[in-house]
Amino acid sequence: MGEVICTVDVVLLTIEQEQLMVALSEREHVPFAGRLALPGGYVHAQDASVFDAAMRVMRAKTGFTPPYLEQLATFSGPQRDPRGWSLSVAHYALVPFEMIGPAAAGRLSLVPVAALPELPFDHGQIVSEAVARLRSKSHYSSLPCFLAGDVFTLPQLQRMYELLMGEALNKVSFRRKMGEMDMLEAVEGAFGAAGAHRPAQLYRLKEAYRARVMTLERGL
Amino acid sequence: MGEVICTVDVVLLTIEQEQLMVALSEREHVPFAGRLALPGGYVHAQDASVFDAAMRVMRAKTGFTPPYLEQLATFSGPQRDPRGWSLSVAHYALVPFEMIGPAAAGRLSLVPVAALPELPFDHGQIVSEAVARLRSKSHYSSLPCFLAGDVFTLPQLQRMYELLMGEALNKVSFRRKMGEMDMLEAVEGAFGAAGAHRPAQLYRLKEAYRARVMTLERGL
Repeated sequence: MGEVICTVDVVLLTIEQEQLMVALSEREHVPFAGRLALPGGYVHAQDASVFDAAMRVMRAKTGFTPPYLEQLATFSGPQRDPRGWSLSVAHYALVPFEMIGPAAAGRLSLVPVAALPELPFDHGQIVSEAVARLRSKSHYSSLPCFLAGDVFTLPQLQRMYELLMGEALNKVSFRRKMGEMDMLEAVEGAFGAAGAHRPAQLYRLKEAYRARVMTLERGL
Repeated sequence: MGEVICTVDVVLLTIEQEQLMVALSEREHVPFAGRLALPGGYVHAQDASVFDAAMRVMRAKTGFTPPYLEQLATFSGPQRDPRGWSLSVAHYALVPFEMIGPAAAGRLSLVPVAALPELPFDHGQIVSEAVARLRSKSHYSSLPCFLAGDVFTLPQLQRMYELLMGEALNKVSFRRKMGEMDMLEAVEGAFGAAGAHRPAQLYRLKEAYRARVMTLERGL
């Protein structure tokens, strides 16, 4: 066939005030100029891969490098883009709010995924699938840690899992699961606030787990 | 950028004589004409999506419609295809051996994934990722049922899970898990061979599960 329009789009997710938020940016060019949409762009000949294209787009549109970026799925067809047959390799990124906040002030709009406006292209569907992926992985993976920042207390981390899974978790079984996954280490001598309680130990991902996602295998 | 070469490739998997096999076809055109590779082809303007392109390629190269086809991931870069910057949206299909056997006799070669020859492009990596996806999903999904055929006995189904998971399963807990997932129904009055034992009840996926994959959610 003639040229397929090849793009990447990124669903950048963070948690602000206990809500899962997605970052949108105002489109500079037609189609849909001026509308809020997922940050994205064309694949360039200089990109080493679509992953690299997504990283390049992220840096250009946000000014930072997301700590976690993964390919979600490829969305395609003759109707999704008025310019012609197109394909977008969608990625999703998880970013602590402290990292995205300053960028959002300038060029990104954070919108709750629970109250998403109508988005151009099939970006609404792309956001839904990213959230579904995130929720399904939260049941047994280290993904929520990437939303919690570099260091966190166990109650803060448990809250991330609860927000993503949409249910309250038992503290004892949460801590047992974290122990089984063996991916956290205490930061020696570092303590965080813990409400009315005494300061709580701060944890971080062990180095081996900082660049990849750990999943807890559960045999039948 | 200029034109990105957009293709789809399919990792067609089956189990023959207790081995996980992948179907390869001989390439008709350059590059790598005459070499065994994953069945694949260009995305066409008439395709409604890359999924449709993968289905079209499957029908053209095998003569049948796979009962289960899912997008795996998109592989891309300037080096993977000598023709230029290319992108392949890889899919994987699960097919009972009875369906693939006759097709394989004519135009497909079944090769054990454990003894894969060197493949052109990055097809070796694509096969590895498909097998990894299948194995990870086997722990809690209905995927192995699609390898077992339309009807099967519970011992046959358990053997599919064991082959994919690479471990022996306890019969009682396997049956309890199948009960929890509630996706099977007995075929009334139909029995299959069961070695030296009396004939075993035949089962099939409930209709609601025949077109999609069921996963057993496991909370923390």
